[in-house]
Amino acid sequence: MRANNWLELEKRVKFGDCDSAGVIHFHNLLRWAHESWEESMEKYGINLKEIFPSIKNDTKKIFPIINCEANFLYPIELGSKLKIKIVPKKINNHLFEVNTSFCKDTKIVAKTKLIHCVLDTINRKKVDLPESLELWIEASNINSKIECC
Amino acid sequence: MRANNWLELEKRVKFGDCDSAGVIHFHNLLRWAHESWEESMEKYGINLKEIFPSIKNDTKKIFPIINCEANFLYPIELGSKLKIKIVPKKINNHLFEVNTSFCKDTKIVAKTKLIHCVLDTINRKKVDLPESLELWIEASNINSKIECC
Amino acid sequence: MRANNWLELEKRVKFGDCDSAGVIHFHNLLRWAHESWEESMEKYGINLKEIFPSIKNDTKKIFPIINCEANFLYPIELGSKLKIKIVPKKINNHLFEVNTSFCKDTKIVAKTKLIHCVLDTINRKKVDLPESLELWIEASNINSKIECC
Amino acid sequence: MRANNWLELEKRVKFGDCDSAGVIHFHNLLRWAHESWEESMEKYGINLKEIFPSIKNDTKKIFPIINCEANFLYPIELGSKLKIKIVPKKINNHLFEVNTSFCKDTKIVAKTKLIHCVLDTINRKKVDLPESLELWIEASNINSKIECC
Repeated sequence: MRANNWLELEKRVKFGDCDSAGVIHFHNLLRWAHESWEESMEKYGINLKEIFPSIKNDTKKIFPIINCEANFLYPIELGSKLKIKIVPKKINNHLFEVNTSFCKDTKIVAKTKLIHCVLDTINRKKVDLPESLELWIEASNINSKIECC
Repeated sequence: MRANNWLELEKRVKFGDCDSAGVIHFHNLLRWAHESWEESMEKYGINLKEIFPSIKNDTKKIFPIINCEANFLYPIELGSKLKIKIVPKKINNHLFEVNTSFCKDTKIVAKTKLIHCVLDTINRKKVDLPESLELWIEASNINSKIECC
Repeated sequence: MRANNWLELEKRVKFGDCDSAGVIHFHNLLRWAHESWEESMEKYGINLKEIFPSIKNDTKKIFPIINCEANFLYPIELGSKLKIKIVPKKINNHLFEVNTSFCKDTKIVAKTKLIHCVLDTINRKKVDLPESLELWIEASNINSKIECC
Repeated sequence: MRANNWLELEKRVKFGDCDSAGVIHFHNLLRWAHESWEESMEKYGINLKEIFPSIKNDTKKIFPIINCEANFLYPIELGSKLKIKIVPKKINNHLFEVNTSFCKDTKIVAKTKLIHCVLDTINRKKVDLPESLELWIEASNINSKIECC
């Protein structure tokens, strides 16, 4: 496995992603950012059922987003094939961010930042990042630099 | 409270509901059907937290949809104000359906049917409808007839 | 009509808005922000078909979002009834922002900011805000102050 | 290219696809069915911009869905890797259906059917299927049989 091949993904813009102006309806980009984060963790080898809670999975920690942001630089049209690059960063023991760039050809067309905190599932107090997430962030940081796609 | 005023709702078609053909993107109609079911139960007096599960709400029963269907009779355009009529029906002790008509002016523009089964949250075996849902269905049936909106 | 009654809306959190952690899935808040903007314009008296493009509506201007942001201050749970307050602001002749606060009881639980630019539909060059939007922003600013909900 | 390799796709269930019961929120399956149809046409070689309308693409025909249906046979959980099989069928000159099976391991977990009609974009009268769609359906039918995934 190449050092950072879990950080580069691809996505094709679908009909239902676009609004009647013919470009991506903006909030879908944030959906894609979260899905890309998930896909990256999976590719790295993390079992999503150990990360995300459900009434069946008794996970100890949750990762609510406390802040998210998106910048749209160029129109993202139906059928466009986007390359996605992910750059995660640990902020402190209970906060991390996931930066995502969406590129078409060699041009960045949009960027997002999601900031997650780490809480105890039950009492919602701040707790440390789980080890698997720490490892994913560290491994990601070894090779990744924000460069043009 | 009028006998069935929890069965008649309203919804305005938003920009993000529509695709680039300028009409509702089809699966959103099914989202609205579920939201209308929820809104109807709320208006009738049911606390949604007692109906729907979460990692916090320890509900005993879940209501997965086993079949859903939608018919589109006329285009549903941005800005349209739809009247929504709900007709629930008990199929048997562990199955019920929610029929929804979406009307514009006096014309039915779309219809949906959701069929839910009732399962034990933990072992996923079939169980009886909860009493609150039984009451909502019975009360709804007393007065509702499928008539033009 | 009260001076700013088009700036205060309500929304109930639905089952499908929430993810398996039992709180709103984050990007839906941005969908709500856009829907709230639309609802506010409608209540003020603007015809959405004159604002938003489609293959049928030959609108001259489009309003793509160039930046959006959301802050999540408290968990937003299934069934919560949110009061929504909108504060629009003109940035310059071709840029405006829509700030939205989501409140539960007397507490702000989340905030969003959408920044829109105004472009010519065909050549995508910057153009002035349409008059109806100018009026909506001005009328909104006369009375609104960012206060607790 | 294998005869029908544009008819077999894959999809991983994401966190945001699931509701607080921990399984796919039902209407997302219909979104996936449409996205799978699009992906299949792309893989076969059809340019989506020639199929779907927008304020920029002057397509002559639109393909509104007049009926859709979904059956849920087994719970579809977060992280599940689904194999998707598509079986299109021409109904008559202006109607076609797209049947989709979603499989986990060797088991069909859900099925959908979308029925599209073909209309003139401007006057909304029934027109013949475009040639590219005809070819995609014919080529698909040569090899595909509904078999277990």
